Amino acid sequence: MKPQVTRAVWRNGERRSDELAEEVPVAFEYNGISHAVMLATPADLEDFAVGFSLSEGIVARRRDIFDVAVTESEAGITLHIEIAGEDFLRLKVRRRSLAGRTGCGLCGAESLEQVMRALPPLPVAEAFPLAALHEAMRRLPVRQVLQQATGAAHAACLVERDGGIAHVREDIGRHNALDKTLGALARDGIAVGDRALVITSRASFEMVQKAAALRAGVLAAVSAPTAAAVRLAERLNLTLIGFLRHESAVTYTANKDLTELAG
Amino acid sequence: MKPQVTRAVWRNGERRSDELAEEVPVAFEYNGISHAVMLATPADLEDFAVGFSLSEGIVARRRDIFDVAVTESEAGITLHIEIAGEDFLRLKVRRRSLAGRTGCGLCGAESLEQVMRALPPLPVAEAFPLAALHEAMRRLPVRQVLQQATGAAHAACLVERDGGIAHVREDIGRHNALDKTLGALARDGIAVGDRALVITSRASFEMVQKAAALRAGVLAAVSAPTAAAVRLAERLNLTLIGFLRHESAVTYTANKDLTELAG
Repeated sequence: MKPQVTRAVWRNGERRSDELAEEVPVAFEYNGISHAVMLATPADLEDFAVGFSLSEGIVARRRDIFDVAVTESEAGITLHIEIAGEDFLRLKVRRRSLAGRTGCGLCGAESLEQVMRALPPLPVAEAFPLAALHEAMRRLPVRQVLQQATGAAHAACLVERDGGIAHVREDIGRHNALDKTLGALARDGIAVGDRALVITSRASFEMVQKAAALRAGVLAAVSAPTAAAVRLAERLNLTLIGFLRHESAVTYTANKDLTELAG
Repeated sequence: MKPQVTRAVWRNGERRSDELAEEVPVAFEYNGISHAVMLATPADLEDFAVGFSLSEGIVARRRDIFDVAVTESEAGITLHIEIAGEDFLRLKVRRRSLAGRTGCGLCGAESLEQVMRALPPLPVAEAFPLAALHEAMRRLPVRQVLQQATGAAHAACLVERDGGIAHVREDIGRHNALDKTLGALARDGIAVGDRALVITSRASFEMVQKAAALRAGVLAAVSAPTAAAVRLAERLNLTLIGFLRHESAVTYTANKDLTELAG
């Protein structure tokens, strides 16, 4: 399955050809048991499987994912994920039938008590230079291949302290894009550490939770965060930046003296 | 609970006050049984309850929703929805633990087979004038109160054939905004009929499904649709328009001769 398809459309009454982002149901199966279906871009699916499993706390460590197999059918794609028996037991106990879609946040909570996960606060870290985030924003567009073609995809990536970007991943869903980047990092054995994550979307509560689950200290979004995202970031000691543009940014929370962030 | 909150932030290093969109877990309870939790904007919650119940096919008719009560707790908001016994039985059989979040699409499907609903195609209708959609786009921004304040909210509304707009509803989640507008229409006893729905976001598969469930023949999105949204719209005979801007639009599918849409 390809991440984009070509189709004839009418633009202001004129016939032309257009590129559309594909949107496919992707089923997550853990140890043979159906778990969730999300609508997603059919690309980087192993990254998605690993990232989602880690960011949702289904497994705590990369090495507790034994295998990921991808199969396609007419109805969509299935990710067959083999995890450690202990994690699988815990998953069954949680009884969260994680179910989602493009742009999802909460994964399958059936009642209000299941929404908030208990994550430990992040350690106080060196402030991340805003200039590096601005440099990342200059470098990112050319790497957003699907977005350039279709206008329908979000991206996430890792940002180095010098503004270099890596592990750019795209998806029609903003949470999926973040999961893919987190998964790609984990598969390469890279911890976010003192670097930052950038997302080209708004920042939700769940995206802060996903970033914090992978111990990322800085999450920067191109658009607005929600109030709940800001409250969670503050509680977890995560630096949350919004409205990140080429030359400006809004800092909502920071784990260091904020005057250092002015640069 | 208020849909927006004020908070001190740092903009490019300078301290200032900012408005943030609230994001609250909203639990759906049908006849006393927990069903789903979505992160949403705490406003127009009765519209949300009615719209979601109809657009997800939990009930087929407004009158099968007997009562909606809203309660608040520290953990979030619960919508207590009383539906007809027959619908409740069907819901239990479906065993879809509908679970979602901001910007969701699929609601709680656990396996690929549960994703696609069997909806009948829409009747062939008179072409909707593009000029009316452009007029709607001129009128909409001033009605997007939460978006103007926070930059974090999507909107949906009904568009009359003369470009008049009504039932504008906002939410941090694009699917939620559409559900709220659909619910507001149903509560006022208004069928979409030969009018259109406009959404300020991209158009997903699930949004086409929701619109078609309420027999809306025209869905116009400010940003891109996905390939799956276009395929479903075509199958259901729904007119799907994307990249709706003040003076331009892309028509992906139409239930009428498309040359009529050029105006």
